[in-house]
Amino acid sequence: MVGALGSVATLVATGLEALKAGLAGATGLATDASDFENAGLLDPADLVVGGHEARGGDWAQAAEEYAQANGVLTREILDAAKPGLLAASADLRPGVTLNCGEAIRKLSPLAPDRDDLPLKEIVASLQRDWREFQARHRLDDVIVVNLASSEPDRSIPREFSYLESLAALLEENRKDLFPASVLYAYAAIDAGFPYVNFTASIGSSLPSLDDLAVRRGVPHCGRDGKTGETLVKTVLAPMFVGRNLRVLSWEGHNLLGNRDGQVLDAPENNRAKVKDKDRALRDILGDPATHSRVRIDYVPSLGDWKTAWDFIHFEGFLGARMSMQFIWQGCDSALAAPLVIDLVRLAELAHRGGEAGAMKHTGAFFKAPYGGGTHDFHAQMEALRAYAAEKRAAEARKPVRR
Amino acid sequence: MVGALGSVATLVATGLEALKAGLAGATGLATDASDFENAGLLDPADLVVGGHEARGGDWAQAAEEYAQANGVLTREILDAAKPGLLAASADLRPGVTLNCGEAIRKLSPLAPDRDDLPLKEIVASLQRDWREFQARHRLDDVIVVNLASSEPDRSIPREFSYLESLAALLEENRKDLFPASVLYAYAAIDAGFPYVNFTASIGSSLPSLDDLAVRRGVPHCGRDGKTGETLVKTVLAPMFVGRNLRVLSWEGHNLLGNRDGQVLDAPENNRAKVKDKDRALRDILGDPATHSRVRIDYVPSLGDWKTAWDFIHFEGFLGARMSMQFIWQGCDSALAAPLVIDLVRLAELAHRGGEAGAMKHTGAFFKAPYGGGTHDFHAQMEALRAYAAEKRAAEARKPVRR
Amino acid sequence: MVGALGSVATLVATGLEALKAGLAGATGLATDASDFENAGLLDPADLVVGGHEARGGDWAQAAEEYAQANGVLTREILDAAKPGLLAASADLRPGVTLNCGEAIRKLSPLAPDRDDLPLKEIVASLQRDWREFQARHRLDDVIVVNLASSEPDRSIPREFSYLESLAALLEENRKDLFPASVLYAYAAIDAGFPYVNFTASIGSSLPSLDDLAVRRGVPHCGRDGKTGETLVKTVLAPMFVGRNLRVLSWEGHNLLGNRDGQVLDAPENNRAKVKDKDRALRDILGDPATHSRVRIDYVPSLGDWKTAWDFIHFEGFLGARMSMQFIWQGCDSALAAPLVIDLVRLAELAHRGGEAGAMKHTGAFFKAPYGGGTHDFHAQMEALRAYAAEKRAAEARKPVRR
Amino acid sequence: MVGALGSVATLVATGLEALKAGLAGATGLATDASDFENAGLLDPADLVVGGHEARGGDWAQAAEEYAQANGVLTREILDAAKPGLLAASADLRPGVTLNCGEAIRKLSPLAPDRDDLPLKEIVASLQRDWREFQARHRLDDVIVVNLASSEPDRSIPREFSYLESLAALLEENRKDLFPASVLYAYAAIDAGFPYVNFTASIGSSLPSLDDLAVRRGVPHCGRDGKTGETLVKTVLAPMFVGRNLRVLSWEGHNLLGNRDGQVLDAPENNRAKVKDKDRALRDILGDPATHSRVRIDYVPSLGDWKTAWDFIHFEGFLGARMSMQFIWQGCDSALAAPLVIDLVRLAELAHRGGEAGAMKHTGAFFKAPYGGGTHDFHAQMEALRAYAAEKRAAEARKPVRR
Repeated sequence: MVGALGSVATLVATGLEALKAGLAGATGLATDASDFENAGLLDPADLVVGGHEARGGDWAQAAEEYAQANGVLTREILDAAKPGLLAASADLRPGVTLNCGEAIRKLSPLAPDRDDLPLKEIVASLQRDWREFQARHRLDDVIVVNLASSEPDRSIPREFSYLESLAALLEENRKDLFPASVLYAYAAIDAGFPYVNFTASIGSSLPSLDDLAVRRGVPHCGRDGKTGETLVKTVLAPMFVGRNLRVLSWEGHNLLGNRDGQVLDAPENNRAKVKDKDRALRDILGDPATHSRVRIDYVPSLGDWKTAWDFIHFEGFLGARMSMQFIWQGCDSALAAPLVIDLVRLAELAHRGGEAGAMKHTGAFFKAPYGGGTHDFHAQMEALRAYAAEKRAAEARKPVRR
Repeated sequence: MVGALGSVATLVATGLEALKAGLAGATGLATDASDFENAGLLDPADLVVGGHEARGGDWAQAAEEYAQANGVLTREILDAAKPGLLAASADLRPGVTLNCGEAIRKLSPLAPDRDDLPLKEIVASLQRDWREFQARHRLDDVIVVNLASSEPDRSIPREFSYLESLAALLEENRKDLFPASVLYAYAAIDAGFPYVNFTASIGSSLPSLDDLAVRRGVPHCGRDGKTGETLVKTVLAPMFVGRNLRVLSWEGHNLLGNRDGQVLDAPENNRAKVKDKDRALRDILGDPATHSRVRIDYVPSLGDWKTAWDFIHFEGFLGARMSMQFIWQGCDSALAAPLVIDLVRLAELAHRGGEAGAMKHTGAFFKAPYGGGTHDFHAQMEALRAYAAEKRAAEARKPVRR
Repeated sequence: MVGALGSVATLVATGLEALKAGLAGATGLATDASDFENAGLLDPADLVVGGHEARGGDWAQAAEEYAQANGVLTREILDAAKPGLLAASADLRPGVTLNCGEAIRKLSPLAPDRDDLPLKEIVASLQRDWREFQARHRLDDVIVVNLASSEPDRSIPREFSYLESLAALLEENRKDLFPASVLYAYAAIDAGFPYVNFTASIGSSLPSLDDLAVRRGVPHCGRDGKTGETLVKTVLAPMFVGRNLRVLSWEGHNLLGNRDGQVLDAPENNRAKVKDKDRALRDILGDPATHSRVRIDYVPSLGDWKTAWDFIHFEGFLGARMSMQFIWQGCDSALAAPLVIDLVRLAELAHRGGEAGAMKHTGAFFKAPYGGGTHDFHAQMEALRAYAAEKRAAEARKPVRR
Repeated sequence: MVGALGSVATLVATGLEALKAGLAGATGLATDASDFENAGLLDPADLVVGGHEARGGDWAQAAEEYAQANGVLTREILDAAKPGLLAASADLRPGVTLNCGEAIRKLSPLAPDRDDLPLKEIVASLQRDWREFQARHRLDDVIVVNLASSEPDRSIPREFSYLESLAALLEENRKDLFPASVLYAYAAIDAGFPYVNFTASIGSSLPSLDDLAVRRGVPHCGRDGKTGETLVKTVLAPMFVGRNLRVLSWEGHNLLGNRDGQVLDAPENNRAKVKDKDRALRDILGDPATHSRVRIDYVPSLGDWKTAWDFIHFEGFLGARMSMQFIWQGCDSALAAPLVIDLVRLAELAHRGGEAGAMKHTGAFFKAPYGGGTHDFHAQMEALRAYAAEKRAAEARKPVRR
């Protein structure tokens, strides 16, 4: 996990310990549905966690801090998870924060030494970390998941579109051009490890890296986990389309107070995030006249408890103007963590099954899915269920059940 | 239209005039979607309206009163529609209110004479009205739509399950047993006219009447138009299922002030409505532990502007308890009227195509669809779109286009 | 405290321990305002708690259960408070539940033996408990606070209006007529102990008991703590009056899941509560045409977290119809507990100052204040501040400062 | 009225006609309260309207456009008001828009000729207009009310603080320094006409102009009418103070679509408005740690229907974190128009009574009251009621009643 001591990664690590200890159930895991029974997914209990992180600390301490600030983790879970978390923290390695922006720089003031290496050596050192991790724990596979804070929105160099020109820039050590997320993605895919981009950062969302993924035979997916307000948007918007109601305005106002919120307080980082959130909506509605706006504001007291208000103004028959509002009060990381476990299971399954390139069946998990496709959540779920059915059928054909 | 001077029927009549005058568009008509292009649906401009009503008055006056109380209809529309509405009012006939409950009785204090006739003569007189209407306007077909207020929730006699025993009770003139909606439904289907039950009343939602529909070769559909809060419920609930989030409680509070609300202020009429609203939700969630409740309260000042607040309490990963709320402020009749036009188009198309019995593809329109099936709105829309595709294909195979 | 192991009383006991341990501040205590500095109020740290309770258990366990269900109390507070709570639990005595209704009976299935005594002996035994408590801890005063669940709404016998006739019924041992709250109130006041009625039950809200209070020289106050939705109502309603906006409808919908909510699920107990909530609003608005309704629904998953939605429909200049809504999500007992401490301080101060009868300056704390007066929260606060100013002045005149 | 064809001024003009025709009541007029009976206020029916406006048009047309876009004005009112509005439109004169910013310039592309005059001539020409208006209608007094869109937030030259230095800049024709609102205010007060600043623009909110008001013996008041979200804020915030609940965050999000909203879409104009809204809140709460933010977003489809969502996060006893939200859906101009009539009545009464300078009793009407004082709405209403009582007493002392 990249950004391994962030809230989401901390809840993933703690949650896996809680699952093993029988103190947490599968609530929140989309892959726990009956559709996925006998589809060959690995057991979450078989997962081993490790990660890169720019800040210091360990998972036991991160879990304590999270619980203090946000509730959710009970004393019982914290106590049961502690030994496992301390042990797993031995697998934390210093992260890369190249071109992650001022906001992230402030959170981890001592830029990690790794940032000072030439690009090729950064890539090599990351790959070395993962391979050692795999060897140390005798793992069948390593899935790299980007859970770091959103990088600033920046124009992507044209050379990033093609694998050859991107590789050339890497060779030329153009440190002004590569954000950390692209380096991680390149390193993972190049080394043959599936890659999941749960953030709004670029990561592997480049034609060149999809090309590399296909060449290396690794599946990858992303971008930007669809956990809360955008999820609801992509669930509701098709209703207006289905009823032929004209959406005049759709205003979304998100308040949050976690580290993500702090980073998004910087206008440059905010822009990237807001784009993904708004595009999903506009794609479904398909009406250029709809006025839409997304705001994300930092409200420190809320911590990880995202509160969103959406106001939808729409027109019906005979010009009647009506409205719908929703208020979402969700614990962001508790919503994201199980989806990360879902995606790790799906990426491992895909890799084991010989699939490569964009995992198109994972659209339901993302605000800006690799490989495009509809943003309609229900249509995305249909695609996921169809994939699960294929996998179940493939499993059923196997001579011996696992 | 049964309940022809009610808000919904009044907006149907006025809306059709506005469409003809070019003062209203197709916003709100679900069948105006591209899926239905070239599927053989008739043009709304070809519809002629008439109806049964227990209260006195005419459509021009009803439209004026509606506009005064609720806005929506502009002066321009009212003026343009007036001549057509006055002319159409010549096709209003006295309605039947047998066993409709005290609340409805109060709205139309002079029980119509027709209520005093023997059951068989009531049926015959309704059929006569429709046939004369058809002849007078040289219509290809007549679609009977129930838009009257919800009848009280009452236990259904066992004999209503079978066509033979139901017919026997009719023969025996058991006026204590038949609510008006069943008489209208029986009369329509028996006479070979498609029947649409847009209310929560029994209407043709009996195995015996489905049997009759199949025998007479007529399609019918219902029950209880899904226009607002329940629509949103059946759109949102699958999201919680898809994400494996456990819904602990779902409380819905509806406020409305129209004649429907007034009738629903009577506990007996309220019960029927609330049942349909709640069942749709529970079927999707499928978790017997979910606490759910629906309230419908009469708030006179709101008129036709239904305001609903839903509070959804749910649990995610690691026991995190979160909530979602939505507030729906919709003009009930402006939401319902275009759906009535949709259903009339679909019923006519089905009849013309030789279909009989429950129109299973219309589940998306109802809270308690005839023929059962999922309550998941998106799955229902898939079924409707598949039906539209079949019809398009059938149209394409025809030697000459209509 | 009567109902000593209920949520409010448990938070009072735990909160006082937390205050002493320096783990809680004065947030939520209205008497901590600068107006009350040097007004002679006792220090909360000088309070000693004890109580009557129909159910078994102790405060340490009650606090644990509360924390498990509702959060709020941290492990640190629970650990620090435990020894004090265990010690204080030695002062718990079996309560009386006479005529408290079925809902309360279910919570404490074994009716306490005390219920079987003749009325006069019940009164005497309660007084004995308090006197022993006072002697054991060498207390200057004992304040009796009713924190038990709301008793059912019942017609009050005419004889309860006059002290003489009430005393006669007591003498005649008319156990069918006396609800527990009246017995506690009578016993306290008769014994010379100030009495605070924080619930919607009758308690001392009878002319006869006010008469007794004046004769015995004890202050008393109540009824029904104004902690959440009603508080907001009495803050907002004067705004509509001040702006001459006509409130057409005010609908309040309360959801809660604690023991109070469970008891209020019984229609008879619900009625009493709803009355108080609605009356406050109607008194301020003063417009008989306003449509108002209050609902309280039991939603188990919410525990102590009351969630209320109020919808206010109002008319402005030129007939413009507008609306305001509010959503209140409060932890009921954490709102009530500091007010209980406030009232104990105020009752002790009044008693010490020789005041007797209804404490008219405490209107801001109650939904149905003894002694009547405005429900306008701001006007009530003015009265409280004026009282504080008098007390400050009186303190300043004293030769030696305490 | 300055900005005479804006929504508020149009509703003032139309509303006065409706009042005269008996088609509107006094709902929304704060001065219609019993406190002001026999306090000597003039009858609204005696008011005559006129105004300055940079755009072309007349009041009848403006009222039609308003009704089309926002409802509210019925056909009956429009028809009844038309003759009076057309007649009154003869008293419209070209306005000044000097330094009103780009956003306002866009609404009235042809800068009025008057902008090209030297400052002293602008002032003189405005005064001439008012005097002619007064003479033409034989009026006892003329009250100048600023209802134009908010001017951009700009730093105020130090010279504006003193009457002498401000006059010197005027003399020097420093057209770069004077925004239109200051010119109107100077002109009105200098000519002896009371001035009401209902907008967030500077107007007469300068020590120098207060000085001039005192010298010329004219009352003036402002700034920025408190009509909706801020009104509710200043009603609710004292509740949190009174209960000693700590407000952690207060986030306000305003959506509106009228011309005001369009102008506020320009960041420079937005800033001025947001400042006033936020300051009122912070002054009441008095806690520097409170996080607060106000957003005003332009949502064209809403027209004059302001929709605001406020989220208040607060802490109670034992650190319990709770929240309150409110949603305000108000018709902005229908809320403002009657307050304008109130202020005109109050300004006339004050002038007639020989009062001069800031009308401190009008704090309840403004977001940033001249003369300072509390922002607590209820305390402001107390001050207003006390003033009314004085006036009633003065009236009662008069030998002959008017």
